Amino acid sequence: MNIFERIEDIRAFSLEGKRNGKTIGFVPTMGCLHKGHFSLMKEAKAKSDVLIVSNFVNPAQFGANNEDYQKYPRMPEQDNALCAENKVDAVFFPGKDEIYPLQNSTWVIEDELSSGLCGRSRPGHFRGVCMVVAKLFNIVLPDIAVFGQKDYQQAKIIEKMVYDLNFPVKIIIAPTVRDNDGLAMSSRNKYLSPEERKKAPTIFESLENAARQFVAGEKRTNEITGEIRLRISQSGAKVDYIEILDAEILKPIDGKTKKVLIAVAAFFGATRLIDNIVVTL
Amino acid sequence: MNIFERIEDIRAFSLEGKRNGKTIGFVPTMGCLHKGHFSLMKEAKAKSDVLIVSNFVNPAQFGANNEDYQKYPRMPEQDNALCAENKVDAVFFPGKDEIYPLQNSTWVIEDELSSGLCGRSRPGHFRGVCMVVAKLFNIVLPDIAVFGQKDYQQAKIIEKMVYDLNFPVKIIIAPTVRDNDGLAMSSRNKYLSPEERKKAPTIFESLENAARQFVAGEKRTNEITGEIRLRISQSGAKVDYIEILDAEILKPIDGKTKKVLIAVAAFFGATRLIDNIVVTL
Repeated sequence: MNIFERIEDIRAFSLEGKRNGKTIGFVPTMGCLHKGHFSLMKEAKAKSDVLIVSNFVNPAQFGANNEDYQKYPRMPEQDNALCAENKVDAVFFPGKDEIYPLQNSTWVIEDELSSGLCGRSRPGHFRGVCMVVAKLFNIVLPDIAVFGQKDYQQAKIIEKMVYDLNFPVKIIIAPTVRDNDGLAMSSRNKYLSPEERKKAPTIFESLENAARQFVAGEKRTNEITGEIRLRISQSGAKVDYIEILDAEILKPIDGKTKKVLIAVAAFFGATRLIDNIVVTL
Repeated sequence: MNIFERIEDIRAFSLEGKRNGKTIGFVPTMGCLHKGHFSLMKEAKAKSDVLIVSNFVNPAQFGANNEDYQKYPRMPEQDNALCAENKVDAVFFPGKDEIYPLQNSTWVIEDELSSGLCGRSRPGHFRGVCMVVAKLFNIVLPDIAVFGQKDYQQAKIIEKMVYDLNFPVKIIIAPTVRDNDGLAMSSRNKYLSPEERKKAPTIFESLENAARQFVAGEKRTNEITGEIRLRISQSGAKVDYIEILDAEILKPIDGKTKKVLIAVAAFFGATRLIDNIVVTL
């Protein structure tokens, strides 16, 4: 497995693959790899010839308040070993100055899908995500890129960015991977105390319950979000948002809605967790 | 020569060239081709194997007031014949819906170099330019792209966008081509009445005079811009702006300035013409 720190080196690796008629699969990550990432890698590997994973904690997406950028977990050696186990062909592990060498004055902004959900709680977050993904696509030159459904809004924004800017990349959204008790895999789960970790599966339990109510014909979204809120609050967490939206346009559901997104963000102690479920009507 | 109207067709043409080890040169245009464009094509052809020219009048760059989008001259058949004469391998001639099929919600914004000069006179113009150039780069996948110095600010903004977003494209800025009397070639010269056409070379004469003053040691930029203003006003035109700036950062010159941009925009009747000259110190 190759590990490249320089843009020119990972790009040369990608271009060499292309010259040999190979397709390039790409999974962008912020490292601290877990089973969720492995499932994205497996999906990318199944649909391409050469698998490239980037490992870059992107300062631009930590939002206006810099949030937890400094304390975000970094374990590149363990990550590299896990990439090798997961049949990654090359890891792109750039330093901050390689990706942001000067103050950039160009911005990539998606302003519709980004406006609600995490976009409301985390100003600047998705602008940073769009920026780094646009850069990484231009550096890695993938044919396909795989994103996880756990970060549903992010995946939809990237899809829209790719559509609007005609990036020659096919976006695949892969299912959320969960621990045995239902908690969605996330690098931030590490921050949970044992007590918080025990309570955290409440998020998914409440989402599953809500999905059942929806399928059973309950149309009063306020009733459904109210019950999610009750369950999560009773577990001791602080709700950031609970939203039921059209899963394609991320707007309130209406007669044309075919798929419904039920999405939650909640704080367990200082740790903000997100999860979602999509119900096809 | 190939003429493609569909994104998938021009992209397939470009990718086929790449698979055969060819480099792709690109000149984006809004059609109504003239000697200025031919010189960009010649430059691109000299530095690449396959030459692609796009011909698309981009509504997004006509700014908030839609300016002269509707009346912008369109002559695709003549343009195609001229492309063939100029050894173009493929013309990309998309309809408006091919480039903007839905309301886009993603924007590419450069907010430093875009703030002055034409950016001040034409709000939204450079956002539209960045948008279409980003899209065209992702569609055509060129190795090099050539822009004219006549649109100096545009060329510098594109350079910065390419740098900031890591587009795998080398930007070349080619010298302004002029008529025998010095008037910079522009599609908008067609709008000039015979009388206005006779007066229009005043712009370049005043720029050349200013450059001579600069080289001779005149450091009082107000004196220099004042004389340009006087000459252009005396020719009957209305000055939009006259600016003397550091040619790299498009900010006021200072002790670190190595190249000076002297740039003018002026209305001859209803027709807005721009021109510039760069003086190396």
